[in-house]
Amino acid sequence: MTEFNAENDPHRRFNPLSGKWVLVSPHRAKRPWQGKQESHLRRAPVHHDPSCYLCPGNTRINGVVNPDYTGTYVFTNDFAAVMPDTPRPPPSDDPLFRISGARGTSRVVCFSPDHSLTLPQLDVPAIECVVNAWSEQSAELGRDYVWVQVFENKGELMGCSNPHPHGQIWATDFIPNEPQAEDDTQRAYFAEHGRPMLLDLVERESTLAKRVVVETESWLAIVPFWAVWPFETLLLPRFSVKRLPDLTGPQRADLALALQKLTRLYDALFDVSFPYSAGWHGAPFDDRDPTPWQLHAHFYPPLLRSATVRKFMVGYEMLAETQRDLTPEQAAAMLRAHVGNGEAP
Amino acid sequence: MTEFNAENDPHRRFNPLSGKWVLVSPHRAKRPWQGKQESHLRRAPVHHDPSCYLCPGNTRINGVVNPDYTGTYVFTNDFAAVMPDTPRPPPSDDPLFRISGARGTSRVVCFSPDHSLTLPQLDVPAIECVVNAWSEQSAELGRDYVWVQVFENKGELMGCSNPHPHGQIWATDFIPNEPQAEDDTQRAYFAEHGRPMLLDLVERESTLAKRVVVETESWLAIVPFWAVWPFETLLLPRFSVKRLPDLTGPQRADLALALQKLTRLYDALFDVSFPYSAGWHGAPFDDRDPTPWQLHAHFYPPLLRSATVRKFMVGYEMLAETQRDLTPEQAAAMLRAHVGNGEAP
Ligand SMILES: O=P(O)(O)O[C@H]1O[C@H](CO)[C@@H](O)[C@H](O)[C@H]1O
Ligand SMILES: O=P(O)(O)O[C@H]1O[C@H](CO)[C@@H](O)[C@H](O)[C@H]1O
Repeated sequence: MTEFNAENDPHRRFNPLSGKWVLVSPHRAKRPWQGKQESHLRRAPVHHDPSCYLCPGNTRINGVVNPDYTGTYVFTNDFAAVMPDTPRPPPSDDPLFRISGARGTSRVVCFSPDHSLTLPQLDVPAIECVVNAWSEQSAELGRDYVWVQVFENKGELMGCSNPHPHGQIWATDFIPNEPQAEDDTQRAYFAEHGRPMLLDLVERESTLAKRVVVETESWLAIVPFWAVWPFETLLLPRFSVKRLPDLTGPQRADLALALQKLTRLYDALFDVSFPYSAGWHGAPFDDRDPTPWQLHAHFYPPLLRSATVRKFMVGYEMLAETQRDLTPEQAAAMLRAHVGNGEAP
Repeated sequence: MTEFNAENDPHRRFNPLSGKWVLVSPHRAKRPWQGKQESHLRRAPVHHDPSCYLCPGNTRINGVVNPDYTGTYVFTNDFAAVMPDTPRPPPSDDPLFRISGARGTSRVVCFSPDHSLTLPQLDVPAIECVVNAWSEQSAELGRDYVWVQVFENKGELMGCSNPHPHGQIWATDFIPNEPQAEDDTQRAYFAEHGRPMLLDLVERESTLAKRVVVETESWLAIVPFWAVWPFETLLLPRFSVKRLPDLTGPQRADLALALQKLTRLYDALFDVSFPYSAGWHGAPFDDRDPTPWQLHAHFYPPLLRSATVRKFMVGYEMLAETQRDLTPEQAAAMLRAHVGNGEAP
């Protein structure tokens, strides 16, 4: 019988952070694609769009006028998914129809006054301002809410309805599904091994090198062993840290550099402003011991083969298990091949 | 303090089948949409397409010629994600890099020789042939594999690369994530309540009526209390049954009718051939007691507001928790409003 070859043979990999498996079918990348192609427009750069509700000086739908901001600008979402004063549903112990209250707030973070830019096009000090805004907002919202979800939807493919560079922060009085799973798995790993899972991981991945995409003094970006999206990455600190507000000045500056490198590699891969959803996970803002946790960011980009062909997470993925068409090691090598390409001159 | 109103106030609902929560933000449906619009072409009907690899008499990529089939036609996928003879990876007990073997097979089920049709356009006896093909395939593959996933990706939006009416069946020597979660929850419910969860559910939903979309003698389709996708439905038998092959002749005929009604309602909702991924879950093909299980089908359609505006499951959904913008009760009422519209004359 022939030997197992991970670059070619279907297999499953386990994600110890989410507790889920992923089906890897490397040979599937060879199949011809006759399906949907995304349109991909290059727009002329417009630095200020009078109809954009995020540009400085413009009036938003609720009549508020944006200030003439110069760096980052944070405001409460005009169509927030959660609100601070929502009434609570009556208690119920019905096992089939369980309902619970949801309070919180939702904010928008503009990354720059310039409508035409994207995160990778900002210089490192400007990205550092974004990191600072994320950290300050997390500290402030963490005083009232147990979970603060910092995220960005970039590109039309990721449901982003406005190209102005911006992200969102949704804070809630509950720990949502995904971080709850990560809380469980990190605590279980710590109980068994006595070390934070992601601190063990960053050391091993740094030595193995084959899944590393970006390396700075304090940060490492890898295509994780269990990546679901074709070019998914996990951005890890090489030092122990629990939450965004705990980062020191030099760690933030170095994070800005790592973010610039990673997002520029993405743009270089298919020569397109690379769509993704990305966001931060850190220890919940509660009284439990945060030692098992490590702060980290996930990048989930949808593209598979080119600027216009995406991965569809559909039938089998929705009903059975996520399935990927190339190995994480292949994806990491493809990204690394562009190191140098997208760097600032 | 004002009273809680589920039609307007954000809240969370628990899915007892998947074990996950969903955030419901009904007021969000009011926000204006400036994002991506899907194109939506009405094609002239072509009954036989010489370039289609599913049409009768055509040659597939591997040189095989399709027979001149008249009803359904099943063959092994030319780009199968899993194969029967894949070598197994060496055993490993590394907690960070767990890998396991994956063997199986993947088949394509053509629903009709007519390239131009979709499932809702077939007559009831033709849909019954599809149900029979699903059942026979499940029985056959269930002899070799513990899990047989029957599913359909319908429409370009769901990554379907060929409009010829067809579905897929992926059988594997492992139970994938989603059915594994349903196996756990149904067994736990049965241990606690002494009845299959979904048999309790179908009785309660039938009486409550407010989430019911389609009702036949033996089947009920509801927008579940915990639906994630805007117009997601759950198709439930009103009688005890564990797996597709266990269905009797009359139960299959009535299922064909329920499927026709449901998919025609979908098409009528936004006056478009409604995209979705759908598939069947039943008791795994193993030696354990299947009593806690009920056979059921999930329909996951992506559209939110119209034929061209979809729901994006992106940033917050990927990183934190799925979030929906209208209540399941509102969605069920919208679907019910079209009863009669799409029915055959
Ligand atoms: O098998 P197909 O139709 O080529 O591919 C489609 O369905 C598969 C199973 O849901 C997905 O993994 C693919 O992303 C999708 O494009
Ligand atoms: O908040 P936005 O940008 O209006 O909306 C976008 O992001 C949200 C949070 O990920 C999603 O729920 C929406 O489906 C998406 O369109």
